[in-house]
Amino acid sequence: MVIGNRAVTKPFSLKDLAGSAGRMDILCRCVAQALFVSHGVRRDSEIYLLLLGEPDPPKALMIRGGEVRYMAPDERNIGGLIRKALQLNVGKEWRRSTPGIYVARKGLRDLLDELSGRYEVVYLREDGTDIRDVACELENPLFVLGDHVGVKREDEAVVLEYASRVISLSPISLQADQCIVIAHYELDRCRGGSISRRGEGRNP
Amino acid sequence: MVIGNRAVTKPFSLKDLAGSAGRMDILCRCVAQALFVSHGVRRDSEIYLLLLGEPDPPKALMIRGGEVRYMAPDERNIGGLIRKALQLNVGKEWRRSTPGIYVARKGLRDLLDELSGRYEVVYLREDGTDIRDVACELENPLFVLGDHVGVKREDEAVVLEYASRVISLSPISLQADQCIVIAHYELDRCRGGSISRRGEGRNP
Repeated sequence: MVIGNRAVTKPFSLKDLAGSAGRMDILCRCVAQALFVSHGVRRDSEIYLLLLGEPDPPKALMIRGGEVRYMAPDERNIGGLIRKALQLNVGKEWRRSTPGIYVARKGLRDLLDELSGRYEVVYLREDGTDIRDVACELENPLFVLGDHVGVKREDEAVVLEYASRVISLSPISLQADQCIVIAHYELDRCRGGSISRRGEGRNP
Repeated sequence: MVIGNRAVTKPFSLKDLAGSAGRMDILCRCVAQALFVSHGVRRDSEIYLLLLGEPDPPKALMIRGGEVRYMAPDERNIGGLIRKALQLNVGKEWRRSTPGIYVARKGLRDLLDELSGRYEVVYLREDGTDIRDVACELENPLFVLGDHVGVKREDEAVVLEYASRVISLSPISLQADQCIVIAHYELDRCRGGSISRRGEGRNP
């Protein structure tokens, strides 16, 4: 789950993902890194985006690797799919926008209430336990991380209510999408590479 | 060094990086992952792009973390800087386009001739030695990898003439930019996180 502190909650221009869309470029890269491998999609992965920017926060997106179609890993393509989802009227329940992409009116606590039942919530923070010591013990983890702003103190308090672990990834401070690549990488090494994937979209 | 087998060698539309620009989106993501960390740039990193697409191949780009300015990690921003470099007339010698970005008429062998003097050339291939066994032995490595097409057989033969090692990164097949994240990650762990970086551009 990635918290987009300024990510806008209405349709936005694909020409300015990094500006007026509230660093939507970061969230697009996170989706790409969460779901794509070479020539395919991780069918067993999901990513949740929490959009907290103006004008209509909070909104949440759920994107499921096992269901997405017509998605390519470039920012513009993913941005277009997010934009489409933001055109829908939202309520408390997930509503499907395009295959594998759902939107709802959910805040951080709503999302964690829902997800902590089926995921082990892991908070990524630089002073946490080294992932390399615990990666192979993680069962169905949901990693929670922030965008360029990070995770605000009040949001962190909520995440820590639900998190079973606080984990650190790297000796240096990385961008959110880089954290996702590394989390997958460490888990892939535990599993020895047996992921379920499918060739997808424009990336042949 | 990333080989862009179809990456175009003339200015292109920023609206279609993944299509008519010959998967320039992949190269943009590689640049971002090679150079950016959270809130800054890796000053000690460089990336070379080999563009082999129409209409005027080969062209090479050199992008130096220690010199770039006004670069943000989103594909559109990096694509704009690459497009600008492709507007220049090129000769055999590097010519500066914008700060830290250089372009020249160089093919694969020209580049490797030049770079193998100051870098240890490492070829990334899935049947190579596990990076985790050798990361801390690498001195000033230059990783060579391909785009979505991979590295063609005849190009691989050239790379292997110069490469001192063939290394594998992950039990599963990953995208080029993901390989770069992981290579940095393994090297960062060896160095304990002491990289030289600088706050840069739009990523505050």
